[in-house]
Amino acid sequence: MTARIMTGARAPVRQSSVRAHNLALVLQTVANSADRPSRAAIAAVTGLTRATVSALVDDLIAGGLLTEHDPAPRTGAGRPAAGLALNAEGPAGLGLEINVDYLAACVVDLTGAVRHRIVAHGDQRPVSAADSLRALDALAAQARAAATAEGLTLAGAALAVPGLVAAGGLVRVAPNLGWQDVAVPALLPALAGLPLTVDNEANLAALAALASSEGERSFLYVSGEIGIGAGIVLDGELYRGVRGWSGEIGHVTVFPDGRPCRCGATGCLEQYAGQEQVVADAELAASALGIALAAVVNLLDIGVIVLGGAYAPEFDRLRGGIEAELGRRVLTSGLAPITLRAAALGADAAMRGAADAVIQSVRDDPAAWLSR
Amino acid sequence: MTARIMTGARAPVRQSSVRAHNLALVLQTVANSADRPSRAAIAAVTGLTRATVSALVDDLIAGGLLTEHDPAPRTGAGRPAAGLALNAEGPAGLGLEINVDYLAACVVDLTGAVRHRIVAHGDQRPVSAADSLRALDALAAQARAAATAEGLTLAGAALAVPGLVAAGGLVRVAPNLGWQDVAVPALLPALAGLPLTVDNEANLAALAALASSEGERSFLYVSGEIGIGAGIVLDGELYRGVRGWSGEIGHVTVFPDGRPCRCGATGCLEQYAGQEQVVADAELAASALGIALAAVVNLLDIGVIVLGGAYAPEFDRLRGGIEAELGRRVLTSGLAPITLRAAALGADAAMRGAADAVIQSVRDDPAAWLSR
Repeated sequence: MTARIMTGARAPVRQSSVRAHNLALVLQTVANSADRPSRAAIAAVTGLTRATVSALVDDLIAGGLLTEHDPAPRTGAGRPAAGLALNAEGPAGLGLEINVDYLAACVVDLTGAVRHRIVAHGDQRPVSAADSLRALDALAAQARAAATAEGLTLAGAALAVPGLVAAGGLVRVAPNLGWQDVAVPALLPALAGLPLTVDNEANLAALAALASSEGERSFLYVSGEIGIGAGIVLDGELYRGVRGWSGEIGHVTVFPDGRPCRCGATGCLEQYAGQEQVVADAELAASALGIALAAVVNLLDIGVIVLGGAYAPEFDRLRGGIEAELGRRVLTSGLAPITLRAAALGADAAMRGAADAVIQSVRDDPAAWLSR
Repeated sequence: MTARIMTGARAPVRQSSVRAHNLALVLQTVANSADRPSRAAIAAVTGLTRATVSALVDDLIAGGLLTEHDPAPRTGAGRPAAGLALNAEGPAGLGLEINVDYLAACVVDLTGAVRHRIVAHGDQRPVSAADSLRALDALAAQARAAATAEGLTLAGAALAVPGLVAAGGLVRVAPNLGWQDVAVPALLPALAGLPLTVDNEANLAALAALASSEGERSFLYVSGEIGIGAGIVLDGELYRGVRGWSGEIGHVTVFPDGRPCRCGATGCLEQYAGQEQVVADAELAASALGIALAAVVNLLDIGVIVLGGAYAPEFDRLRGGIEAELGRRVLTSGLAPITLRAAALGADAAMRGAADAVIQSVRDDPAAWLSR
């Protein structure tokens, strides 16, 4: 972990920002430890003094972010030091998802454990945006009540949608839901008083894949649902694009004079490799996916592709066809391997990513949580 | 300009790195000034003390990076302060290019002015790599002699190639040159003693476009030659990819069952919109380009596309066809404009970008230059 403080001739470092930085450093050190570290171990890892670490740890415990445990007795000399862990009864994140054929909600605690999860299947295409959001609001109310019953404090909520999101939670277009310019936050009264962010479902699923990946810093996450979206992770960060609308791989042209798409174009990937097409013709779906993915690799020089959503359970049926196209169409395929794998979280990835995003914001800036 | 120093609990700021940072800050302040700033003006802009600025300026003048001039007499009270400027007789960059149908070399001084330029046209496809590089070496020797004759000191050289480059200047593949695994530096003896970097031509051309752009922080630069490459600039930085092989737009599939490509695939953009195809069928070239560019915009959410190389003089013939495809195939085309424009530097962009890269390395780290 690289610790950074922005400074320079005209930007003096203030004591308050040093404390905020160091609180985050201590919290991250605990989160990244395989076992429960002692205060002394944290001092050794961070380079902070023991006194500074102890003061910061006390603040994090008082704020409900850390707990201090007696470790299991060990053999050997001396009394083992008490160990620190993230507090599973502290702040939690509410993750929500609205997709073409289901609504979902989950609560994830600070340790990353899922404490509540509910999925309501049902085609949203014939339903108005207001009615879909009314049903989602009911799930959100249930999840909020469940969190309270477990003694958790929701730090915020995030909602995954299959569309293009602008500032203020305005969904500009969600082609497969038939949504245009839906101002989401006002339609979710159950979230009153909670910070809410609305984000593209593939972006959030990619963040979940990043959180659970082991050392993969750059990858393309492809979310195969009725529609198809992608999250582009470059060097450990989600690349959102200039307006936040990156990753629309479902509308990459694979057959220029091909099937008409709901977006108005012809030959979009979505018309050949959406989840309904995967069932109907896996060979064509794999070939179309391979053509679009080859374009991504040729353009971005990414070596890892993660297939999520409805693609994950179909991975074995799709893999060969995709790899054949990548082998033929990627200029560097003979020079560097391309890793293709199924996402671990499957269809839950977007709502998990939504909840993770809330948790991550607490982990990134515990000072803001403590001063709330 | 944001001044940054990397620091943190385990990374103390050292005096030597502060001096290096401040030397660069002063040099960039002079470079970015519309007029010749005084030492006092630099102190005001940077927040450094006048004494510190004067010591740094003295070092930069002694190292041949700045010159101090008497400004033109002004009306009004008082004697005007002397003004500082980049030294046009100081370090210079040698830019080289080898492309499918020409070789080129240029010398650019610290102010960005081209002091020497030579282009030798000739098809390199029938010529071996060794023979092409022997001819380029002769151009490099001429350019080096010209720089010396003008009193310039070459700080380094950079070579633009239409292919995939690995560490140590090894060109892994340049499909249109027929090159495979060519270790370039050893074949350019005229550059003995000069630092040499070898880079993809579209990357270097994109850097030249970035240097000359006014406020465009994210764009796709497309270099249309016999082959087609792209440089992806995201938030003011060239995105190189995981292995440095990004931007291979020439091998994005536009017609899956289409024309065979030299790379082994079928239907690559290069087979429809390379410079020879633009002349033969501008309408088809524009349509193919539009299909591939729509994929880029759908994936990366970039709002500016710069057409360079052989596309620049053909821009008016291509524009309508490209824009029609972008309008149809980009999901966000109704929500946000896409700016399409011709590159200002035309066919010189890659070698200019190569020379600029050398100059930029001096500007970014003048301390290294001063201590050479």
